[in-house]
Amino acid sequence: MLTLQEVVRGIAPLHDKALKEAQRRVDQLIKPIGSLGKLENIAVQLSGISGEIKNIIGKKCTIIMSADNGVVEEGVACTPQEITVAQSINMIKGVSGIAVLSKQANADVKVVDIGIYKDIEYPGLIQRKIRKSTWNMAKGPAMTREEAIQGIEIGIDVLGDLCQEGYTLFGTGEMGVGNTSTSSAIVMSFTGYGADFAVGKGAGLSDEGLQNKKRIIEKSIEINHPNGEDPVDVLSKVGGFDICGLVGCYLAAAYYRVPIVIDGVISAAAAYTAYKINPLVRQYMISSHCSLEPAYELIMKEMKLEPMLQLDMRLGEGTGCPLAFHIIESAAAMMNHMPTFAENTMRDDFLIDIR
Amino acid sequence: MLTLQEVVRGIAPLHDKALKEAQRRVDQLIKPIGSLGKLENIAVQLSGISGEIKNIIGKKCTIIMSADNGVVEEGVACTPQEITVAQSINMIKGVSGIAVLSKQANADVKVVDIGIYKDIEYPGLIQRKIRKSTWNMAKGPAMTREEAIQGIEIGIDVLGDLCQEGYTLFGTGEMGVGNTSTSSAIVMSFTGYGADFAVGKGAGLSDEGLQNKKRIIEKSIEINHPNGEDPVDVLSKVGGFDICGLVGCYLAAAYYRVPIVIDGVISAAAAYTAYKINPLVRQYMISSHCSLEPAYELIMKEMKLEPMLQLDMRLGEGTGCPLAFHIIESAAAMMNHMPTFAENTMRDDFLIDIR
Repeated sequence: MLTLQEVVRGIAPLHDKALKEAQRRVDQLIKPIGSLGKLENIAVQLSGISGEIKNIIGKKCTIIMSADNGVVEEGVACTPQEITVAQSINMIKGVSGIAVLSKQANADVKVVDIGIYKDIEYPGLIQRKIRKSTWNMAKGPAMTREEAIQGIEIGIDVLGDLCQEGYTLFGTGEMGVGNTSTSSAIVMSFTGYGADFAVGKGAGLSDEGLQNKKRIIEKSIEINHPNGEDPVDVLSKVGGFDICGLVGCYLAAAYYRVPIVIDGVISAAAAYTAYKINPLVRQYMISSHCSLEPAYELIMKEMKLEPMLQLDMRLGEGTGCPLAFHIIESAAAMMNHMPTFAENTMRDDFLIDIR
Repeated sequence: MLTLQEVVRGIAPLHDKALKEAQRRVDQLIKPIGSLGKLENIAVQLSGISGEIKNIIGKKCTIIMSADNGVVEEGVACTPQEITVAQSINMIKGVSGIAVLSKQANADVKVVDIGIYKDIEYPGLIQRKIRKSTWNMAKGPAMTREEAIQGIEIGIDVLGDLCQEGYTLFGTGEMGVGNTSTSSAIVMSFTGYGADFAVGKGAGLSDEGLQNKKRIIEKSIEINHPNGEDPVDVLSKVGGFDICGLVGCYLAAAYYRVPIVIDGVISAAAAYTAYKINPLVRQYMISSHCSLEPAYELIMKEMKLEPMLQLDMRLGEGTGCPLAFHIIESAAAMMNHMPTFAENTMRDDFLIDIR
């Protein structure tokens, strides 16, 4: 099993030669230069990741990290904690949002119990529990530093195993009542923004609930003093096991050179933390849909990423990922199947250069 | 063959009962109410269109109306007119952007020559030419009123034939150098907005080119006096054959009760014109990607529609449609395969209500 340190040291940037060759080819395809926008960027990114100009997206899956958060005892979430269990099982059963959208995208869902508050067994559930729920971050650190590292290494391990199984495109999702609170706390710790800029209503809090949530998150930061220069310190003090696991997934995706899709705010907070650990991981990330949570926009701005889907979704679970898979496959199809002007002319003298 | 009048009179609103039942079911699916955003809206819309709660998207295609515009002699486009022919053929050959993205979406492309500037024959090209190119709208009306109606009726006919062939979801695209100019002129005629608000760089004009384009469009409106209260008058004076054909497609989609997807600004200008002819058609439309042309935003605002894809695309051809097809199919999958809380509990006592 790889350690966090080994992975962080093993991450390399995108293949520069492939990036340049891919960009050159995209610019020669039979269309005005740049006219397919983000599809072009994604196609070039895929080339930089794999080193190949043409890439076929094979097996795809969204990894769901499920865990509970001790801070829910402060009333920061409108959903009862039981939902973490119930929805994790619904995902495996194939009936939750992420499961149904994944099936439509011919993609799989892998659910990891990395810290659900009670013991469960269900065929297909990947059992990697660190502990039953974190502690309440409003009263002290959510977990120890060692547990945070353990969580990251679990994510590394899970993604590594799935690469072995032949998956070549990953999505990131989560299930964990209270995890928009931990996500906002992480973003505030890194950026210094206050709760008014970084805290939203999650799955559907009232205005009053939102005020309480802001207060609790501010208090958590105040008593824990997370060090924004030390991402593992931030994770351990105001993060969650689910987010630790996802941080590991992002790092591992860059290490194993596979593209990985960001979903909503929780997934984005994990992406941002991974980026703080090693900025190169950003090159392997693709944003999917625009979250309605305010912290999401802060993260995108910091990482200079832009979502491609505007669907007003706020379900979480990684639901943006299978939708983005369709677009990513379309970008690959553009690169694989559109000819250049030169190739097209050779095949048919009737045709002329359209530029 | 149906007349414009027959179609306009035959358009009915969405099935109210199905809309309500569909909304009720969507609200009962195992997710927080409203949390799948636009996917929910689309699923309910599909129910209102068909009258059925569950809808399976079968055969899909994007209809491409190809025609030339006399106004190109004023230098409003940076692309030579030959491109209208070349790209129309490339679409049928399967190598253009719309063709490749459609194949990826398991969708077809149907190309209609409704006014290309020269005679062409190519297997698969639907020959419905009104005339070789419109006249130059900067010197007088682009076409006669009769030709505008003929163009609309061709669109009605083409979509009707495709419904007969079993297509159940349509996209709208176009090929016609100069058609962002006609689209902007149409939007300005309906809304009263000036060129600074409604004219963009199209496929890639220079700043100087843009100034000329604005002047030419303003001049076209000035000399023709299109009557914003009479959509056919607007079409005939400052429109194009491609846009007339697409107007017919939108009207026919509502008449035959099939969903139809808007692409970029030209397709949107046609949608807006159809909406001006009969506002009920809007209920059958689905927006795809956000165009970079300023007139697009004006149209969306007027019609209270919102694009779902932010991909910075400016290729036209209907390229947003096959990408949107994936999302529409995902919306249908949500409705068809997610259980309600009640259904899910019945099947598995272990599970609890997640609300």
